[in-house]
Formats: sequence, structure tokens, C-alpha cells
Amino acid sequence: MAKELKELTKRADNYSQWYNDLVVKADLAEQSAVRGCMVIKPYGYAIWEKMQRQLDDMFKQTGVQNAYFPLLIPKSFLSKEAEHVEGFAKECAVVTHYRLRAKDDKSGVEVDPAARLEEELIIRPTSETIIWNTYKNWIQSWRDLPLMCNQWCNVMRWEMRTRPFLRTSEFLWQEGHTAHATREEAEAEAQKMLHVYAEFAEKWMAVPVLQGVKSETERFAGALDTYTIEAMMQDGKALQSGTSHFLGQNFAKAFDVTYLNKDNRPEYVWATSWGVSTRLIGALIMTHSDDNGLVLPPKLAPIQVVIIPITKGADQLKAITERLTPIVEGLRAAGISVKYDDADNKRPGFKFADYELKGVPVRLVMGGRDLENNTLEVMRRDTLEKETVSLDGIVEYVEKLLGDIQENIFEKARKFRDDHVYECNNYEEFKEKVKNGGFFLCHWDGTAETEAKIKEDTQATIRCVPFAYEQTPGVDMVSGKPAKCRVIIARSY
Amino acid sequence: MAKELKELTKRADNYSQWYNDLVVKADLAEQSAVRGCMVIKPYGYAIWEKMQRQLDDMFKQTGVQNAYFPLLIPKSFLSKEAEHVEGFAKECAVVTHYRLRAKDDKSGVEVDPAARLEEELIIRPTSETIIWNTYKNWIQSWRDLPLMCNQWCNVMRWEMRTRPFLRTSEFLWQEGHTAHATREEAEAEAQKMLHVYAEFAEKWMAVPVLQGVKSETERFAGALDTYTIEAMMQDGKALQSGTSHFLGQNFAKAFDVTYLNKDNRPEYVWATSWGVSTRLIGALIMTHSDDNGLVLPPKLAPIQVVIIPITKGADQLKAITERLTPIVEGLRAAGISVKYDDADNKRPGFKFADYELKGVPVRLVMGGRDLENNTLEVMRRDTLEKETVSLDGIVEYVEKLLGDIQENIFEKARKFRDDHVYECNNYEEFKEKVKNGGFFLCHWDGTAETEAKIKEDTQATIRCVPFAYEQTPGVDMVSGKPAKCRVIIARSY
Repeated sequence: MAKELKELTKRADNYSQWYNDLVVKADLAEQSAVRGCMVIKPYGYAIWEKMQRQLDDMFKQTGVQNAYFPLLIPKSFLSKEAEHVEGFAKECAVVTHYRLRAKDDKSGVEVDPAARLEEELIIRPTSETIIWNTYKNWIQSWRDLPLMCNQWCNVMRWEMRTRPFLRTSEFLWQEGHTAHATREEAEAEAQKMLHVYAEFAEKWMAVPVLQGVKSETERFAGALDTYTIEAMMQDGKALQSGTSHFLGQNFAKAFDVTYLNKDNRPEYVWATSWGVSTRLIGALIMTHSDDNGLVLPPKLAPIQVVIIPITKGADQLKAITERLTPIVEGLRAAGISVKYDDADNKRPGFKFADYELKGVPVRLVMGGRDLENNTLEVMRRDTLEKETVSLDGIVEYVEKLLGDIQENIFEKARKFRDDHVYECNNYEEFKEKVKNGGFFLCHWDGTAETEAKIKEDTQATIRCVPFAYEQTPGVDMVSGKPAKCRVIIARSY
Repeated sequence: MAKELKELTKRADNYSQWYNDLVVKADLAEQSAVRGCMVIKPYGYAIWEKMQRQLDDMFKQTGVQNAYFPLLIPKSFLSKEAEHVEGFAKECAVVTHYRLRAKDDKSGVEVDPAARLEEELIIRPTSETIIWNTYKNWIQSWRDLPLMCNQWCNVMRWEMRTRPFLRTSEFLWQEGHTAHATREEAEAEAQKMLHVYAEFAEKWMAVPVLQGVKSETERFAGALDTYTIEAMMQDGKALQSGTSHFLGQNFAKAFDVTYLNKDNRPEYVWATSWGVSTRLIGALIMTHSDDNGLVLPPKLAPIQVVIIPITKGADQLKAITERLTPIVEGLRAAGISVKYDDADNKRPGFKFADYELKGVPVRLVMGGRDLENNTLEVMRRDTLEKETVSLDGIVEYVEKLLGDIQENIFEKARKFRDDHVYECNNYEEFKEKVKNGGFFLCHWDGTAETEAKIKEDTQATIRCVPFAYEQTPGVDMVSGKPAKCRVIIARSY
């Protein structure tokens, strides 16, 4: 067995360490020389590219266009929306100078004090401020609305405790920023984009999510409402996987963005913003993977099928390669990404373990007996089940298998999630059970005090008021006060 | 005629102003609130996306993989390669703090002096240093080579004089960084990627380029050789449109990156880097566009065909739309991006001028008489020629026309370029002629002194030693000294 694989921590031993190990061993990412910033390695980046391509198509289908806004934001812009600056000022990377100079002793370079900026610039933690400052010039009349832009970019939040993909100082994301004539339209847009995220999570990542609305405490800084998709990891913790914000007229007022309505009267514009980030890769890893390594959904796997010949000598390799070449071509013609691995410097056992570690959904192996029998050994990564299959009709077989795997890992994750959602009415019971993870559906009195007490007692937070849950009023398990609805409470990443 | 169009400066009056006007009026980009940084608007960004998609495919076909490295670079990294720091330290955006705090008088935020970084971080002007610091861990043996990564990202160079796309403080680009076992392989890689750039420029952008190698003065900071593609703008000035660098072992030595060769002995790794940026959009605009606006090559035009109905009343609009719907679908099925513009709040004349301004390659118009005759009026943007064409076979007609336009604008640009390349042997003649633009093929003695004198006298610089030119030795026109070859000298952007 491959050395890398043997060293992978078991989930049951230390789930957190297993995750950190896996990110590095599967060549997804690594820590960089800059605190809290990661290097996304080619294999990890290939997953992100597949995510981007699909999400980008989905956004464009709703009429969104891509654009690009500056990386740097004038310090004064942040202050224009009171809650926004409160939320982001404490974790900003600040540019103060625009030049270095050689040190006198030639031992290196130092900041040139003569090159101090008049106003400091912030590396964007998110772009509402610079974008609404721009939208001011783009919006005059109702005919300019809705205005719907998205950008794919890097952002920076100076986090103190970081983990690859889940929480890093720099991360890659997309941020959509839309402007609308009415409150209703903006609210509908914020919810529509949440649904896009949910559809992407479930159909592409095979990650089941609960959609809902955040409590006031957990809202985005400057939003009137924050909608969220919440996924459950294998340790029962929640991972907020995407958010969509109804911003009301807060940014329009902060940046004085008005439009002339059909009656030629000026009105403030209504806004939304919404984003998902490289955090999705973390969600993907933690939802499906196992003690052997990654389990990737076929729709997002950089390599969907690996084919490995096992041969004795060059003649047999040649015969097997000849037999397999039309198979490789047939799979590729069907739009399947295939790697044919006939490298002679690694033993089959090493390759098997390595592709399991990397989460390649389907492995095809041909040895001497298969060559005689015109068969292949097929292994599916999700269940590790093996089967011997005829070469005839293998393309259709693999296509179907990839679909089955996609469906199976989603169903498995959904069952796990559903098995760990509990209605709970008793705080003592809650405090005991929440230690083991899971989503708790509990009545909440709507106060920040109760929310704070739960967090202090248990580290768990209110994840959202779920949409897909038939609500009945009840009694808050903590305060004993009346509660309008149940919320989902969980520990989270 | 549309107001926007009337206000576009004529090229003959002020080429530079024409360009600035056009960038704004065609909705490509605008100045942002941050000095020297632009906002790339959706129409401009759509061109960049098309460029990215094609270049990315071409890179991957050569075996390059995408990855992502941190935005911020520790200051000390820059100093590790002596020429590199010399080249970039003077235009760096420097992050010194990681937190803001509320001012005492609550009037805004200020830098929190307690949050000073131990070591300042530089926003990447290019990523050789952080990438080679990473490669150190990725490369152990000859089996790890070649290592070929590319990243699409933003970079920052604090330019004092900026122009949209051509020179901005922040710009988008791709940077490829490859590591090789031998000098020969690295040199071949640097040249291969230059050829990829040249092919992209000519076949996709329809911009003819001269490939060549830079003089020592004009080399990338830290390179042993810089290869370049040079395009000629309509004012006869050169635009450096892409560069590929053979870096020798400079960065391997600076970051101590060695590999064990087949004899198990450590050797320093050989490197290349290569990049093109949003500057390509500037090259595209300045090569083809005219006094009516943009002329875009069909292969990169966000909208390839616009269809405009000209109707009297709703019944006729309905009849025309019914007739045109299968045409729109047929064109889209052929992979052509089509906009059907039946907006009723703009007059046809305004639309015509606007799509000319935006450089849409083909315009189709159907009026009442066309409806009767089953015809369309076709206008091609490059020549502004109109023709009336039957609806039968229109899809094939348009496909062919798009190909013709692509070819025609390339040939036109090539003829213009070729007509403005001069062999020149007399410095007085050169000084007089270079004022009017053009590429001058002149013998050069190879000294930096001669190069500096030419620049001082005429503002022109040595663009490159061109590859595709049969060289014979001669006499330097400035110094009278022997010269091995001719170089291209031109004023440039």
C-alpha cells in the first residue's frame, strides 16, 4: 500500500486532522509562505475550474453578466455604510505605500517613507462599496434596471485561525451584485440566486443543503436579510456553503444611487449581493470522502475515469494498449475525462491507492486474462465495489456508472443528513446531544440574548430558519418564552 | 445619428484621444475611484472571457495546468533575485497593516497602529518569487519535471501614467511558470509559448505580430532572454503584446530549487515564465477600429450578429419576428452568438450607430419589403458594405461572412503593417521618418550606448531582433561600428 495512504489519519480518530491530511495528500492545496494564504495546487484548482464553469453558465442563464472591479478600495468607502465597516474593518489588509527602496546597507529593500499614499487602500474583503460607487454612474433611469453583474476574483479577510478552503485569509470566490427598481424584485433575486446555489450544491456537488434565512446576529454586515445554504459534514457540523443577501437600499443610500422611475421621480435603488467561494471545495471533501481518500462527484472530478494496464513485458503492454485505445477514444468522444496510466515507474498497487486517494470515480484495469476475455475490471470509488465487464458496450456502461455514482453519493449524504436532524424541545437534552453533532430543530424566541446563551453554553449557533419545514409556534427551550418558529441550531465550521 | 457616435474623436484628429473615447463610449472600461485602476465593464469583460477561454485551451494542449498562488508576497522574497527586485521594487503596492479601527471622534476608520505586520507584504507585480519558493517543495527528482503551471489572476504595478488596458496599475493576466531539467528544454518552452501567443494574436485577434528577442536593456527583470510579439497600431507605434522569458537558473538559485538527475546528482532547475494581459484588448481596439467605433474580429466578438426588425406597428413586428425566429435559432445552433434587438424605445438609426460603435461584425435588418421578398439586408462592420440576401441559406451565408471578415481584417492589418516596415541605413533619415511611425529595420552594434542614444534622440526603442528576417551583417547607422544584425526600432506604447 502506498506510503501516502497509510499515513492518512482515520476519520474516527480525528476528523479534523483527517481533513487537513487529505487536502495535502490528495494534492489539493498547501499552506503558503504567507500567513493564512494557501496555494491551490493543479488538482485542487481543476475542481474549482469545473465549479466555476458550471456556476458561471447558471448565472448567465439568469441574465447576469461578468465584469471586473478594482482590487483596492479607498478606506473612506468602507465607512459609508455603518454596519459594513463594523463587520469588515477588523480584518482588513491595508496598503499604505506604493514603493520600496534599497536599504542603505544594500541588505534588501524597505518601504520608502516618501511613497506614502494620501488615503490608505484596503484589499477588498467584498466589493459592495466600490461597486455601488460605480453603479452610481451606470444607473440613471428605470430603463437601466435591473443591473446584474458578477465578478470572479480574489478577496482578503485577515482571519486569525485558518484552515485550507474552509477559512483562509485570501480566497477565490464570485460575488454577484444586482440593482433593482423595487423591493420585491430585489428580494426575489436574492432568493433566486440562493436556489441556484442549492441546485448547484445538490446536482453538481452531490451535497444536500438546507435553504433558509439567517438570524439578525448572523446576517451579512449591511444586509436586511441573509439567505444561506447549510450543509452537514460527516462529523455532524454545519458548513455555511453559500449566502445571498437582500441589502435593501442601504448601499444605494450610502453611495447616493437613485434612478428616475416611470413617473420621472428619483428613487433609491434596491440591492442584492451573493457569493460562493473556494470553501465549496472544503464542503465537497468533507461530505463525501472516506478513510481511503477523496470521493469526488463525477460531474466535478478532474479525472472521471482512470485506465490502468497490468502487464508482463512490452509485448503485452502493446497488445493491451492497442485494445484500449478505441475505448479511451470512445470515452473521450462521450465527453468523459480519461487518464490512461501506463507509467512504468509505479507499481499497480501504488497507482490503485493513489487514484483512490485522489477520488477518481471509476477505475478500469486490464490484465493479461482480461485481454484474452475481452473484459475489464471496473471499480467504483464510492463503494469500492469491483466488477468484471465486457469491452462491448463499455462506454455506455461507464456513462451509466458515472451517473449512478453521482446519485448514490448524493443519496448517501442526504440519508446521513436526514438521520442527524433532530427536533428538540428540551435544553438539557440539547446540550448533551449537540456535542455529537447534528442539526437541531428548536423553537426560538427570536432574541439575541437566547442566541448568545446557546452559543456560550454549547458553541452552537443558529444556522437559519429553514424554508422547507412546516412551522408551528411553540415555546423557546432556553427562555421558556413564546416562539414563532423553529430554527436549525448546530455547531459549525 | 446617435449622440455617442457623433462625439467620437476622429483618428486623424487625435489618435490617442480617439482611443480613450472609444474605450469609454463602447462600454469597454472606465476609470475607477482608485488611481490607475480601471473597471472592466461587461462588454469589455466579455471580450476578455473569450480570449481567456481560447488561450486556456491552447495552454492546456501543451500540457500546462492551472493553479493559484497567493496575491501577497513577503518583501524579502523580492530581494532574493537581484535584477528582479531592481525591476519591480519601485512600483509596488505595500501592505503594512492588517486592521482598521474606529477613529476616536467616530468620523470614520483609521489604520490600527497595533496591527502592523512583522514583515511587509507586496501585492504581486508578477509571481516568480512566490512560485519558485513553492516549487522548491514540489521538485525533488527529474521525474517531477517538467513542471508547468499557469495562473489567471490580477497583478499590481504602481504606474505613474496609465491608460485603459494599455497600462494600468492593476491588470488581469495569465502568468505561466515552468521548470525544466535542461537549458535546451527551457529555451524551447519559452519559444513554444511565444508561438502560441503569436498564433492566438493572428488567428483569433486578427492582429499580425512580429516575433523576436529583446535586447538586454528591454529584458524582463531576472531573465536571460525575453521573447516578444510586437504588433503595429494604426498610428505606426509598436505595442508589445505578449512576452515569454527564458529565466535560466536565476530563480532556481535564488530559491535553492534543485532536482536529482538520472545519475542521482543535484542540479539547479531551468525556468521560463510567460504572460499576456488585458493589454491585448487595447491591441485589438487599436489595430482594427475606425472612426465609427470598434471593429471586432468575429472569433472574439461577444455579439457576432445583431438582428434588427424595422416595423410599422405591432402586427408587422409580429410577422417579422415569426419569420426571423427560426433564423435566430439556426444561427445559434451553428454556434453563432446572436442578439435580436426589437426594443421599441430606440430608433433604428440609433441602434445602427450603437452596434457599429460596439463593433458587432454582422448586422441583419428586416423591414416590410424584406418580409415580402423573404430577404434581409446584411451589413458587414469591417467594410460597412450592405447587401440584400435571401433568407434561404442565410445561416451558411452568415457563417461564411464571419470567416471572411476575420480574414479580411487580418489581411488589412497585415498589409498596413507591411507597408510601414522600412529598412533604414541612415540615422538622419531614420530620425525624420520615425516621427510618423512605422517599424524600422536597422543594423545595431549591440551596445546599450547606441540604444540609449536612439531613445534620447527619438523616443524610439529597440523592439526586438525579429526571427523572420534574413539577417546579414552591416554597419550601425548611429555609431558606424560593425553590426551583426538588424533590429526593429519603433516608438511604442
